[in-house]
Amino acid sequence: MDPRDLTLASFQRHISERYEATDRARGTPGTWMWFSEEIGELARALARNKDRANIEEEFADVLAWLCTLANINDVDLAGAVTKKYLSAKAPKGHK
Amino acid sequence: MDPRDLTLASFQRHISERYEATDRARGTPGTWMWFSEEIGELARALARNKDRANIEEEFADVLAWLCTLANINDVDLAGAVTKKYLSAKAPKGHK
Repeated sequence: MDPRDLTLASFQRHISERYEATDRARGTPGTWMWFSEEIGELARALARNKDRANIEEEFADVLAWLCTLANINDVDLAGAVTKKYLSAKAPKGHK
Repeated sequence: MDPRDLTLASFQRHISERYEATDRARGTPGTWMWFSEEIGELARALARNKDRANIEEEFADVLAWLCTLANINDVDLAGAVTKKYLSAKAPKGHK
């Protein structure tokens, strides 16, 4: 598919369909450990800044694990960002 | 807009249009500090698990700052997750 057409909701749903049963059984604290590992891997990739493919993959992994955390906490990411960043009350000067 | 129609690319672009100049001037290490702060706020919201609106807002903030880090490192998040998670070579059993 064309990445430009990928909705946030469909990606979150894809992660749910593929992984949510396992992720939910592990629970939020355990899943947070995996998420943190991915955050660390992204930090390492950005700090070294030498491997574009690795940097892109680590960004993908962090987003996938953020979707996982959202799934097991029943959070609709697209709804959350629309409310915070795309509504009339969105922050103006900084996030 | 309907959150279900929100593409990941358009949200990343929105964050770029609104914040990228400032974010790029700050650079990756400084921006990582802000990102880390949001990660911590999400951890706190999930650990307390008492305020649904706050949990949703913290998820939104983490995603916005992930977009910021991607923007200032010239990473197309939708392209990255499509390549890693939605292609024929996507991981099967776990992320």
